[in-house]
Amino acid sequence: MHPTRLSILGVGLLGGSLGLATKARISGCKVVGYAHRASTLKTALERGAIDEGYDNPVRAVSGADLVILCTPVGLLRENLQQISHTISGDTVVTDVGSTKASIVAAAEKEHPNMRFVGSHPMAGSEKRGVEHATADLFENALCILTPTERTNPKALEKTESFWRRLGMRIEQVPPADHDRLIGDISHLPHAIAATLVDVQEGAALKLAGKGFFDTTRVAGGDGGLWRDILIDNRHNLRASLARLRQKIDELDSLLDPARTEDLRVWLDRAADRWRSIGPKS
Amino acid sequence: MHPTRLSILGVGLLGGSLGLATKARISGCKVVGYAHRASTLKTALERGAIDEGYDNPVRAVSGADLVILCTPVGLLRENLQQISHTISGDTVVTDVGSTKASIVAAAEKEHPNMRFVGSHPMAGSEKRGVEHATADLFENALCILTPTERTNPKALEKTESFWRRLGMRIEQVPPADHDRLIGDISHLPHAIAATLVDVQEGAALKLAGKGFFDTTRVAGGDGGLWRDILIDNRHNLRASLARLRQKIDELDSLLDPARTEDLRVWLDRAADRWRSIGPKS
Repeated sequence: MHPTRLSILGVGLLGGSLGLATKARISGCKVVGYAHRASTLKTALERGAIDEGYDNPVRAVSGADLVILCTPVGLLRENLQQISHTISGDTVVTDVGSTKASIVAAAEKEHPNMRFVGSHPMAGSEKRGVEHATADLFENALCILTPTERTNPKALEKTESFWRRLGMRIEQVPPADHDRLIGDISHLPHAIAATLVDVQEGAALKLAGKGFFDTTRVAGGDGGLWRDILIDNRHNLRASLARLRQKIDELDSLLDPARTEDLRVWLDRAADRWRSIGPKS
Repeated sequence: MHPTRLSILGVGLLGGSLGLATKARISGCKVVGYAHRASTLKTALERGAIDEGYDNPVRAVSGADLVILCTPVGLLRENLQQISHTISGDTVVTDVGSTKASIVAAAEKEHPNMRFVGSHPMAGSEKRGVEHATADLFENALCILTPTERTNPKALEKTESFWRRLGMRIEQVPPADHDRLIGDISHLPHAIAATLVDVQEGAALKLAGKGFFDTTRVAGGDGGLWRDILIDNRHNLRASLARLRQKIDELDSLLDPARTEDLRVWLDRAADRWRSIGPKS
């Protein structure tokens, strides 16, 4: 059931952490990595995140029974195309992208015989690169799988079992629902965190405390990676932004000395909801 | 220079942490606390945050050379009134409120002979109560002092020296500028964090990861305390909200496949600014 030869395309922070976690948790699994840059492969090998490294995705997937795409969302479709003729019919292919509808649709339409399963491990960092990879990045975090009626059941089982072995909790959500809900709970907060940084004067930034730093931490993530995600999910994100604007107007109307009790109730309701979710990792 | 009898009005998370920090850092200083509830005083005494406890602010400030108001922003003016006839002419009075213009104005107008100095230690937690107090809450964090031309220089020196002894960095900012800048860097993020929680469906909250939890952590704070702060600073906060709305519209216009490079530049600019501030505690 567990992979014996895992191929990771893209050994940055996520891919590198995946290699470290696999080697710590799945004995006997050979981990093969692809990266564009030789220096990345060198660091990944030195850190023990991969056993073999290639600067060519086709060579990196040869013989693998599980392939995980960890490249930016904007490159996933091209990666599927590149590897489609090399992998065997039994090879399971999954990814770690933050959007799911477009890649699942592309896989099913363009590669109907590929055993593709959409994955979205909700783990990451504002840091970049394999030098910041950690073996416990996925522990106790949530992994969302987005199977459809066309997903091969054995491929789904293998993918789910792999993420569980890395310590993740699993939820299954259809691709379109995933993108709508994650638009609200992840892409909207990211966009707004960046906005909250952008709106500050320099004099205000000098007074930033831990609260501001935490609130905007996700905005420290790489612009290119997030550009891909926000563009791919722009229709959902725009709907989320529209709903947020309404909530901001609602809050604005409560900033009235005659409505202090309504404001307290509104703030306490948000505080109660926040406490109900608890830290997830 | 350092206080020998410190009176803390309000021994919750902040006041309790202040007591613990003072006892750890300033030898020979007696710490006296006021709290409304007997159970709070009992816990504060048991945890060693105070040496003596009173359920009456007047008794708690008797003989103190430094008084720190740690009660909610909405009660500060009343507290000043209550203690004004008991403290000596040499007693220095400061506070920890998140807004400064109104309390500084009230102190100077209503108690012209009181040696009042406005303080805003940028430290705190979404947790409440003396049971979560910690001696290192203030270490390496920023304390903003808001003296005016009417502030007694010796009182300012004593207040600054006290916060430094607790490990804080100091910035001096006029009260009105403080409220405007803190409106942007603290009250706006708080309001928006609460809005980001409020806008979520239950199904999305179930998918929340560490990113969402961090982004909205401040929204876990007590609604009553934050109601006071946001209402007191509502004029600045409304201006901040208006500027944020413009930034959101700007971002919305960048969610266009024809403008991906502009979007990346915008996101990377926010990421660079975020990295430039670094964690403050």
